[in-house]
Amino acid sequence: MMDYATQKLSEEKVFKDPVHRYIHVRDQVIWDLIATREFQRLRRIHQLGTTYLVFHGAEHSRFNHSLGVYEIVRRIIDDSFSGRPQWNDSERLVTLCAALLHDLGHGPFSHAFEKVFDLDHELFTQKILLGDTGVNSVLRRVSEDFPRKVADVIGKTYPDKLVVSLISSQIDADRMDYLQRDAYFTGVSYGHFDMERILRVMRPSEEQAVIKQSGMHAVEDYIMSRYQMYWQVYFHPVSRSAEVILVKILQRAKVLSEEGYTFKQEPVHFKSFFDKTYDLADYIALDEYILMTYFETWIREDDEILSDLCDRFVNRRLFQYIDFNPAKEYRKLGELDALFRKAGIDPDYYLVVDSSSDLPYDFYRPGEEEERLPIHLLMRDGELRELSRESDIVDAISGKRRTDHKLYFPEDMLREGKKKKVLRQQILSILNT
Amino acid sequence: MMDYATQKLSEEKVFKDPVHRYIHVRDQVIWDLIATREFQRLRRIHQLGTTYLVFHGAEHSRFNHSLGVYEIVRRIIDDSFSGRPQWNDSERLVTLCAALLHDLGHGPFSHAFEKVFDLDHELFTQKILLGDTGVNSVLRRVSEDFPRKVADVIGKTYPDKLVVSLISSQIDADRMDYLQRDAYFTGVSYGHFDMERILRVMRPSEEQAVIKQSGMHAVEDYIMSRYQMYWQVYFHPVSRSAEVILVKILQRAKVLSEEGYTFKQEPVHFKSFFDKTYDLADYIALDEYILMTYFETWIREDDEILSDLCDRFVNRRLFQYIDFNPAKEYRKLGELDALFRKAGIDPDYYLVVDSSSDLPYDFYRPGEEEERLPIHLLMRDGELRELSRESDIVDAISGKRRTDHKLYFPEDMLREGKKKKVLRQQILSILNT
Amino acid sequence: MMDYATQKLSEEKVFKDPVHRYIHVRDQVIWDLIATREFQRLRRIHQLGTTYLVFHGAEHSRFNHSLGVYEIVRRIIDDSFSGRPQWNDSERLVTLCAALLHDLGHGPFSHAFEKVFDLDHELFTQKILLGDTGVNSVLRRVSEDFPRKVADVIGKTYPDKLVVSLISSQIDADRMDYLQRDAYFTGVSYGHFDMERILRVMRPSEEQAVIKQSGMHAVEDYIMSRYQMYWQVYFHPVSRSAEVILVKILQRAKVLSEEGYTFKQEPVHFKSFFDKTYDLADYIALDEYILMTYFETWIREDDEILSDLCDRFVNRRLFQYIDFNPAKEYRKLGELDALFRKAGIDPDYYLVVDSSSDLPYDFYRPGEEEERLPIHLLMRDGELRELSRESDIVDAISGKRRTDHKLYFPEDMLREGKKKKVLRQQILSILNT
Amino acid sequence: MMDYATQKLSEEKVFKDPVHRYIHVRDQVIWDLIATREFQRLRRIHQLGTTYLVFHGAEHSRFNHSLGVYEIVRRIIDDSFSGRPQWNDSERLVTLCAALLHDLGHGPFSHAFEKVFDLDHELFTQKILLGDTGVNSVLRRVSEDFPRKVADVIGKTYPDKLVVSLISSQIDADRMDYLQRDAYFTGVSYGHFDMERILRVMRPSEEQAVIKQSGMHAVEDYIMSRYQMYWQVYFHPVSRSAEVILVKILQRAKVLSEEGYTFKQEPVHFKSFFDKTYDLADYIALDEYILMTYFETWIREDDEILSDLCDRFVNRRLFQYIDFNPAKEYRKLGELDALFRKAGIDPDYYLVVDSSSDLPYDFYRPGEEEERLPIHLLMRDGELRELSRESDIVDAISGKRRTDHKLYFPEDMLREGKKKKVLRQQILSILNT
Repeated sequence: MMDYATQKLSEEKVFKDPVHRYIHVRDQVIWDLIATREFQRLRRIHQLGTTYLVFHGAEHSRFNHSLGVYEIVRRIIDDSFSGRPQWNDSERLVTLCAALLHDLGHGPFSHAFEKVFDLDHELFTQKILLGDTGVNSVLRRVSEDFPRKVADVIGKTYPDKLVVSLISSQIDADRMDYLQRDAYFTGVSYGHFDMERILRVMRPSEEQAVIKQSGMHAVEDYIMSRYQMYWQVYFHPVSRSAEVILVKILQRAKVLSEEGYTFKQEPVHFKSFFDKTYDLADYIALDEYILMTYFETWIREDDEILSDLCDRFVNRRLFQYIDFNPAKEYRKLGELDALFRKAGIDPDYYLVVDSSSDLPYDFYRPGEEEERLPIHLLMRDGELRELSRESDIVDAISGKRRTDHKLYFPEDMLREGKKKKVLRQQILSILNT
Repeated sequence: MMDYATQKLSEEKVFKDPVHRYIHVRDQVIWDLIATREFQRLRRIHQLGTTYLVFHGAEHSRFNHSLGVYEIVRRIIDDSFSGRPQWNDSERLVTLCAALLHDLGHGPFSHAFEKVFDLDHELFTQKILLGDTGVNSVLRRVSEDFPRKVADVIGKTYPDKLVVSLISSQIDADRMDYLQRDAYFTGVSYGHFDMERILRVMRPSEEQAVIKQSGMHAVEDYIMSRYQMYWQVYFHPVSRSAEVILVKILQRAKVLSEEGYTFKQEPVHFKSFFDKTYDLADYIALDEYILMTYFETWIREDDEILSDLCDRFVNRRLFQYIDFNPAKEYRKLGELDALFRKAGIDPDYYLVVDSSSDLPYDFYRPGEEEERLPIHLLMRDGELRELSRESDIVDAISGKRRTDHKLYFPEDMLREGKKKKVLRQQILSILNT
Repeated sequence: MMDYATQKLSEEKVFKDPVHRYIHVRDQVIWDLIATREFQRLRRIHQLGTTYLVFHGAEHSRFNHSLGVYEIVRRIIDDSFSGRPQWNDSERLVTLCAALLHDLGHGPFSHAFEKVFDLDHELFTQKILLGDTGVNSVLRRVSEDFPRKVADVIGKTYPDKLVVSLISSQIDADRMDYLQRDAYFTGVSYGHFDMERILRVMRPSEEQAVIKQSGMHAVEDYIMSRYQMYWQVYFHPVSRSAEVILVKILQRAKVLSEEGYTFKQEPVHFKSFFDKTYDLADYIALDEYILMTYFETWIREDDEILSDLCDRFVNRRLFQYIDFNPAKEYRKLGELDALFRKAGIDPDYYLVVDSSSDLPYDFYRPGEEEERLPIHLLMRDGELRELSRESDIVDAISGKRRTDHKLYFPEDMLREGKKKKVLRQQILSILNT
Repeated sequence: MMDYATQKLSEEKVFKDPVHRYIHVRDQVIWDLIATREFQRLRRIHQLGTTYLVFHGAEHSRFNHSLGVYEIVRRIIDDSFSGRPQWNDSERLVTLCAALLHDLGHGPFSHAFEKVFDLDHELFTQKILLGDTGVNSVLRRVSEDFPRKVADVIGKTYPDKLVVSLISSQIDADRMDYLQRDAYFTGVSYGHFDMERILRVMRPSEEQAVIKQSGMHAVEDYIMSRYQMYWQVYFHPVSRSAEVILVKILQRAKVLSEEGYTFKQEPVHFKSFFDKTYDLADYIALDEYILMTYFETWIREDDEILSDLCDRFVNRRLFQYIDFNPAKEYRKLGELDALFRKAGIDPDYYLVVDSSSDLPYDFYRPGEEEERLPIHLLMRDGELRELSRESDIVDAISGKRRTDHKLYFPEDMLREGKKKKVLRQQILSILNT
């Protein structure tokens, strides 16, 4: 069986990639994994969910990104780590596989879907790796315990912490790929940093990949890119508007199903999720093509709320929004809730607070919710120093969480509705002050 | 009504675009057209059909491209034509609308779909413009005959030939956008040419947009880019393999429907196309999300051919191919056809000749099938000269049609099938020599 | 005379520019200024002094940059300001001229040259504008007081503060050009920010150009770019090494001249600077071609120090350096000074402390040395807010000066010298700890 | 001695390069060669001579380009050739050295200088390699015959033809670097081709590097890039105007010297070239800083022609030009010559025909002046086929030489001169028709 683990393609295969120029594949295992149904399914899931409704270029899929993460890890191992004593080359294949497969468990419009059905995509990644799937059967050809190993790397429980850190840390291949890729496809000028340099100065150490001191400025730039991408792209209030609507569609469909509503287009694919009886096959069967097809047909459902929400999502008639401070303005929210009801607009679906929050970088703070592995610089004398102790810029933003709250509502409905004009007018004037 | 035609947004809106940096919209009409369902539908149709199965970055939609064509035409008019005597500024709005809407009638996986159901996307563009649609109602607010005018520009029957040439000629905004856009998303290095320069030297003339002599080399470069993109990207044999399978899926579904086969997943959306009773609403209801959803569910159909073809398309198990010369090798094809039948593999679905052909540039040759408008250079003395008379490079390739034929077949099926091994072996040896 | 001020070229002229694609010139005045000897002279002065000895791509001249600043200001005025009530279009020409000419007074290797001869390039810019020069005679054709006006804009005493702010403020055209241009030519990935967006959201106000709130993140990115460029490129310790040597060459030549040393190659061009009798013509006659020619010939001078320093500069045998804290290590410096003398290496030329210091951004702090105009955001309600009050990132770095001290010395001389080996060894061991 | 040939730096050194991102140096020999005076001298010679007077970005030096050629060859050897049987790795060092040093013998403004003094830069490259120079002493540390070997590669007489072809053939590292580099620095959009792909498909064969068939389109693109760069950049009529003036300055100085004219600024550096007694040291002592310094001081010479020509070159007051057909218009030229003399304008300096000519690609034509090595494709069956037999585009332009003739003259002098107005008017009218 070890043959398969080291088997090379007769000729290197390349994928043309707009971000890394080429993705290089020499290992038969990697080639076979890419050909599996579960991996091909990632073509049918947008990398950035609803962001394409704001940045029209952002139509790229998780398939794209997964290849990119693989390529970055391959370059780190082959170009920077290989031959250094701290790197154990027998970890190469498991690391490459984990890089390629780390997003395998993402469902369609992950955030919304997971939220409504209380799922966890990381758990599904594990299930796909270990369950009865094409991916599992490829991995098992390497060795019986190989699927488990790959799962452990992705689950961060793998004994070799260095391997884990390449896939998930504050400066991992995942982030390095998505920042650049999302910047490329959206066309924004943020998201650029000198990855070539970071790869060149990355060094293996016992607990994690570390960065030679001379690369500090490139890392600062990377952290700033990440900050900008979060606030400019990932948390863009308009794509959050689309996401809010998506959540509400799924919630409405679930409620209707529970209430025994007769769908013209039966939600066959959703059923097991509504009643929590889903299995792995149900999950894998889903993708954004399927969901969108439901939404398109549900526009013709009799339920006005479901129909309207689907029409909004499919045809991009999104909710309007205002800044909102939940701590201070809870009374205003209560008031609006009551007025919406009076006006015949169900606030459970049409008045939504959405919050986004990010911590651009942090050093290790024991006992905190997420115990983040800090970035370490490898000093000339061999010592490791935590990044924010060396970088003024990073120190200035370390541990500073930033949060944004928005209140979403259908302004068109308030403005154009014919009934209860005075009420609607009153709501609008509250919303606009 | 004229008010609406000249109405400006209170503030210019911009779309971030990776190719043109920003798309600028000031006209209320354009803004309203973008918001229509028919235009938003273009988000659900890939610009390059099946190409994303080879170039994984090519996941961009026709929505993207349509905005790009609009932006190029807007820049030509506002930056290069405006104020010149040969340009009639009252044609501005009709030109912008035609640019934005020129691809409106494209269906899902257009080439395959049109081929099987004998449709024409240009006809559907006309129908959407003139029928009972959101687009039509926006256009009619300009004036009763405005939809007709836009349709005439796209249909090339509009009296002002200069306007027509901006949308469809051998150097139009359509081509300039798609070459650059498709190069950007695929990541290939072809497709770059100096559009900034071409826009700067484009001048209005009576019959068409012409290029100042000083811009000749930029135009040469554009023609070479086009040539390279056709042969490197658009005619890539692997995406043609996917397209071949797509055609066969649709043909099979049609045949099954005609034969009264009972589908587990009824082809509701296709029915009117199978029996040629479709109307505009049926057509608009289609997109690639819907089609893909059918293909995914049809994998579980009992009909082995339909199931297999759908599985191939969805999971990218494509046909293999060899070069094939139909003029010389028709006997071989006949022989293969017979052997396929004997081996129990239906050659109607599994043995397919596909041909691609392109003419990179041509001057006017009266009486020929496509009477192409040649590109004209505006010489310093005011004279117009056809491009190939000035450019050695263009002269060298003018009128030289290049054609490529391939024979597609399921190599895996021939290699892995267990029955009739000898026959399959025989077929394989014919195919590989 | 007003005719000349508004005179347009019969056809717009363009310069191909790698940073802004094209530089557009329509005004006859601008065209004539570019053709003057004083402006053409900027081709013979590197934009980044000695930086090309580290980043070999940085061979671009101040001519390049000056065109770039002009183009940015032109775009701000023509695309963003024109037509807005706060902008007075009669200031257009003076602003364009000031942008184009703001660096006119730079001498060869400005920093070193100014330091040794106690000069100020801004003063020379004024002298060139107002003295008997080609530039002055072009400007005077506009009006008698026009040269004075341009000089006042550059000198920051012009009454219209908005005009001044376009050329010199914390977010001016000068900085926006050089960050991008220097990044382009060095090839570093810092220095990129979304200038297109900043230009789009820049608005005229009474005291300065301000930025619409929606552009805040682009400005944050610009400030971070600036920070990175300072520490990665402008303050690179190796180019400072070359600059240290340059200063010492000029000082040595001056000392020799004062001591009556007989040069093989008489320093004709320097004479008036040595004895402080220089006039404008002497200054304009200098450029880096002239200086380098002296340095090349001085390699063959008898004075060993001058010869060695020139050889170092011309043939890039630079000084080595170590981090050095002048506040704490002054004793060490004294000790080294004595040892150098004992070892026969003149510490006045071969042991040099060099310090670089930068303040990435600051708001207004009255009474401070440099009263910097802060960057203001234009909020949706029309209010102006100082940037660091809105931006967490900028707030974190506001007013934080960073300084770097290095001690430079000729390691090769210490290592390879044959005499006084023990002494040299002792010096080396002090320097390396 | 073999130790030195294989000696590696303790840590890889990198140069930041805007074209190739980084230049990587591991070999001590390469590092030492870069540090020599002769190699550093290349910083003082523009890569594109006078082109910076048209494309202001083109201020880059031959130092830049030489590093680039080295890097491309390094990548070909290390990434594509290494380990293949047709490649002999003992040729690695000589190939890298030849790549780095191939332009070592270029003088200041090579074309003009060589033309006037009848020199050949390739001969000087040989002399520097073999003479008493820093470069020679580094190379000799490898082995006594190593300088000779490097010289033979550059001189194309080296026995291993594969090695020669990497440095000089129709698709060599020299061309691949300069096309991209010159495009980058000028900012033109031509000059881009997919070098990554070409490097990936390059294969060693006995006589030369060949290209796998699958890379044919990338090679087509490279040939078209080359074509465009020649006509858009290298043969730009305005930089040829500057070159014409340069030639005339050198000719005039030579004539004056021969006639015993007393220069205010003695042409010390030129003397040995005027009387053909120069040696290697004289040649190496020259660079463009020295020449420009002469031209600047010669503006103040009494000889009007020398003074005027120098002023033109330094301050960019170039000659005007018209298309000119020497075969047909020789009579007109004779007539102009006579009229110039009558008008007191010496036609030997002020009326110049300049011709540029290029052959974009050619296959082998035995017996022709330049027997060009054609580009060969490596077909799937192992056969080699000459490129133009496979590529329609290349076939169309193979062997098609294109030539351009211009007649240069000082239009300003004709227009502004005060004496003999009628004559000048007559000349102008001949020139403008």
